[in-house]
Amino acid sequence: MKPIMEVAGLIGVEEEELELYGRYKAKLSSSLWERVKSRPNGKLVLVTAMNPTPAGEGKTLTTIGLAQALNMIGHRTVAALREPSLGPCFGMKGGATGSGRAQIIPAEDINLHFTGDLHAITSAHNLLAAMIDNHIYQGNTMRLDPQRIVWKRAMDMNDRSLRSIVTGLGDGNGAVREGGFLITTASEVMAVLCLSENIRDLKERLGRIIIGYNQEGEAVTASQLEAVEAMTILLKDAIKPNLVQTLEGTPVIVHGGPFANIAHGCSSVIGTRLALKLGNIVVTEAGFGADLGAEKFLDIKCRQAGLDPAAAVLVVTVKALKYNGGASKDKLHEPNMRALVDGLANMKRHVENLKKFGVPAVVAVNHFADDLPEEVELVLAECQALHVPAAVSKVWAEGGAGGCELAEALIRLLAEESSSYHPLYELETDIRSKIETIVKEIYRGAEVSFTPAALRSLGDIERLGYGSLPVCMAKTQYSFSDQPRLLGAPEGFTVQVREISLSAGAGFVVVQTGSIMTMPGLPKSPAAEHMRIDEDGRISGMF
Amino acid sequence: MKPIMEVAGLIGVEEEELELYGRYKAKLSSSLWERVKSRPNGKLVLVTAMNPTPAGEGKTLTTIGLAQALNMIGHRTVAALREPSLGPCFGMKGGATGSGRAQIIPAEDINLHFTGDLHAITSAHNLLAAMIDNHIYQGNTMRLDPQRIVWKRAMDMNDRSLRSIVTGLGDGNGAVREGGFLITTASEVMAVLCLSENIRDLKERLGRIIIGYNQEGEAVTASQLEAVEAMTILLKDAIKPNLVQTLEGTPVIVHGGPFANIAHGCSSVIGTRLALKLGNIVVTEAGFGADLGAEKFLDIKCRQAGLDPAAAVLVVTVKALKYNGGASKDKLHEPNMRALVDGLANMKRHVENLKKFGVPAVVAVNHFADDLPEEVELVLAECQALHVPAAVSKVWAEGGAGGCELAEALIRLLAEESSSYHPLYELETDIRSKIETIVKEIYRGAEVSFTPAALRSLGDIERLGYGSLPVCMAKTQYSFSDQPRLLGAPEGFTVQVREISLSAGAGFVVVQTGSIMTMPGLPKSPAAEHMRIDEDGRISGMF
Repeated sequence: MKPIMEVAGLIGVEEEELELYGRYKAKLSSSLWERVKSRPNGKLVLVTAMNPTPAGEGKTLTTIGLAQALNMIGHRTVAALREPSLGPCFGMKGGATGSGRAQIIPAEDINLHFTGDLHAITSAHNLLAAMIDNHIYQGNTMRLDPQRIVWKRAMDMNDRSLRSIVTGLGDGNGAVREGGFLITTASEVMAVLCLSENIRDLKERLGRIIIGYNQEGEAVTASQLEAVEAMTILLKDAIKPNLVQTLEGTPVIVHGGPFANIAHGCSSVIGTRLALKLGNIVVTEAGFGADLGAEKFLDIKCRQAGLDPAAAVLVVTVKALKYNGGASKDKLHEPNMRALVDGLANMKRHVENLKKFGVPAVVAVNHFADDLPEEVELVLAECQALHVPAAVSKVWAEGGAGGCELAEALIRLLAEESSSYHPLYELETDIRSKIETIVKEIYRGAEVSFTPAALRSLGDIERLGYGSLPVCMAKTQYSFSDQPRLLGAPEGFTVQVREISLSAGAGFVVVQTGSIMTMPGLPKSPAAEHMRIDEDGRISGMF
Repeated sequence: MKPIMEVAGLIGVEEEELELYGRYKAKLSSSLWERVKSRPNGKLVLVTAMNPTPAGEGKTLTTIGLAQALNMIGHRTVAALREPSLGPCFGMKGGATGSGRAQIIPAEDINLHFTGDLHAITSAHNLLAAMIDNHIYQGNTMRLDPQRIVWKRAMDMNDRSLRSIVTGLGDGNGAVREGGFLITTASEVMAVLCLSENIRDLKERLGRIIIGYNQEGEAVTASQLEAVEAMTILLKDAIKPNLVQTLEGTPVIVHGGPFANIAHGCSSVIGTRLALKLGNIVVTEAGFGADLGAEKFLDIKCRQAGLDPAAAVLVVTVKALKYNGGASKDKLHEPNMRALVDGLANMKRHVENLKKFGVPAVVAVNHFADDLPEEVELVLAECQALHVPAAVSKVWAEGGAGGCELAEALIRLLAEESSSYHPLYELETDIRSKIETIVKEIYRGAEVSFTPAALRSLGDIERLGYGSLPVCMAKTQYSFSDQPRLLGAPEGFTVQVREISLSAGAGFVVVQTGSIMTMPGLPKSPAAEHMRIDEDGRISGMF
């Protein structure tokens, strides 16, 4: 591992612009931004994916490996990634820092407390919660309705027992009311931090957060509770992007990690913007497949932040194609050309969709050791037929060297095809039209149905004046539809919108199809039980 | 502010033994301990206090100022302090980092997230809680009794609504049961961290934590839940002491901050031991007045860790003496010689008590601007009559220069009187005798009464084999008795023991007199409402 100062030096960051957290992690100070902000931007490349198998497609892996490869072939490249959440590490084995020879390091630290950003977000979130209940307890001059407080509490832990709780029991402990905990990544404070441009913007967004309603039915905000300054104080370091490195010493900005369903699932705007000033190419990713991740990256993050993506990389795997072609989950390692051919429809649709945003795309076939040459050839041939460039990526096994073919394909694409990026829909149409546009254009559903509750919320949100916000779709990642088993490239389905809610601070309307779990649970045999640490602090069993 | 590397250099710490957290905070690596562990120890000085007014007596202030003064007069001195808790900062204005010209800095950072130790403790605590409920949910093979889980959850926030809650409501969210949150400083994980010698000891102590009882009534430990390794992984950095500096550049080790009532209220053993290898004198403090803080420092921390305190500084103020002599809280700034004379009985008893541990004492009169010369003279004259050295301390107004007289008195004491430190009671007597010894010898009560619940717990604890642990008294800090208004030097009272509980990991039995609040609430106008942060991240209104 190189000292982080050396990694920073590769992209022209000076020693006094780093705030070290040990030898291998650092925060990038705001003076760095001031120094570089008038530079031209590098090219922004989004790594997204087809609809995955339940095991995932290697999007983070490909992002890291591609950045390594681009540096290897001479392009100054910075990766911009999300921060892992601590809670899930103790559930299922494996972190969120890539794997094989395409990892960011120190992986254990990044997966554990890192530089404390998630803890700071948890604290800011829970300070607001404490101030809400304290306001009620101390006389409730704002006449908050205890039964209509929508602000929950947050913890970075997989703890299903905290999903639904009753608080304030006992004598002198305040109003008894129903509440619950979200995992920290699902906090609106996280989404706000990730979309903010600077401290001023952070404050304004925190101030707009709706915490509940008063007895008159009016929305009450964090600003009215006078919580915003103290919350911002808690976030003053968390808002600074973190710098780490890949196994090959490529600089990586890791910052923010909002839930990819009830939020937009992209790393921070501040981190992305800074990366664009430091690298000629910035490789970033968005949560879930392109129907969710890329759509939200392009319709929410890029629009709000004025970012101009130059290209997208669509990660596919032979396994996921077979899965989408009907092969069963436990037989994906077996040859099945028929399923593979059928599954290509899923890839094809994602390629078409990316073009609807005006963003040129290249397909990355993330290679597994048991992929057959004829399977890989078939995928590449289909890409050729679709007139989309493609390359096999072997970054898990070979690191940057295994990603050079992909890197070169991307460089050719960037040289030959310029992006004409535009969001899919205009903000100034009504919420219902925006949802219908996404469902019909991206998901290719026939229609959208709304529950009465969703329609009621929709009306409330437009009456409150938030009708021109973008929509943040929450849907299963396994299908274009809202039905996890409807694989491939389904058509003619109806998407059922169950609930619509407002994230006024983040600046989007969450459209919920199916039920969303905002607090995970631990499995029967949690990974925590199998981890080990020796007397010198060396960890094993985390990955 | 000096770069922390420079401060470290003052005590011979090398660059590679520091893990930097920004420019002004660092963790001290375990390699430092390995290098210095065979050195002789410096002299350990405890700063404690008389029974305070509700505003406190300036114990932390005096500790910091005395360390500054000792360095000023040529003695290489390190202070060893507790870490502040985040939650209370947002309740009442003012931090736990001293004040005036005797402060540790960067005060805001130290009072906020610092190096993340409290967050790590919160995470480790809550991981264990999640694993308990998950065990029950996943089939409960250990037959845990959901109604007898004693392990609560933790949060570093003042949030009274979380004191008593019901968890696991809703479908599929586990067993419905009563629970609650402690503030993180009250977590047994905090006490364990503070008393551990190293990672191996930390693991053993965490493993002994009793989380509840099974259907057969047997105690179940964290070790049986296989939570210990993962908890230790979460604590791997938190166990390393933190180095900061005072306003005058004196090195200060700030590490651990256990509640001073349900725990022992002293900074970490690891930090104290390291300080003793780095400084010729180490100044440390213990929570509350000497009847609680010094007793627990001497009977629990020093005994467990094999520390040999050389002297104690008893902080008194004219105001607290008048308060203990019957002056009312809002009239302490007015001259009242009668009350002052009466209040001296409180000081006298604390001086006598310290001698019972074989520890030489010096009285520090922490000076306030409105103290009258004749008031101060009276206190000094009484000390002379008691044959205890004394000095006026003006460190708030003057920093180290205002503490030189005290520092010189302490140096004389260290030269002239050697400590014959010994704990007050033997471990091998029964719990009841230990409690009675403390009540009669230190508090000077006539007798101890036990509620039936306390007697039942006492029996259970001895049957479980923990009868030879030291006792950790939880009592009001305002009186020698368990009645907050019984000021001065009361006698003949009965101390009522309401409940006795076992902290098997920390290694003590908590003896509760009166009711203990382990989760504070916010006041009517929380300090959080009055804090400000500007666009460049500069904070105001925290102190």
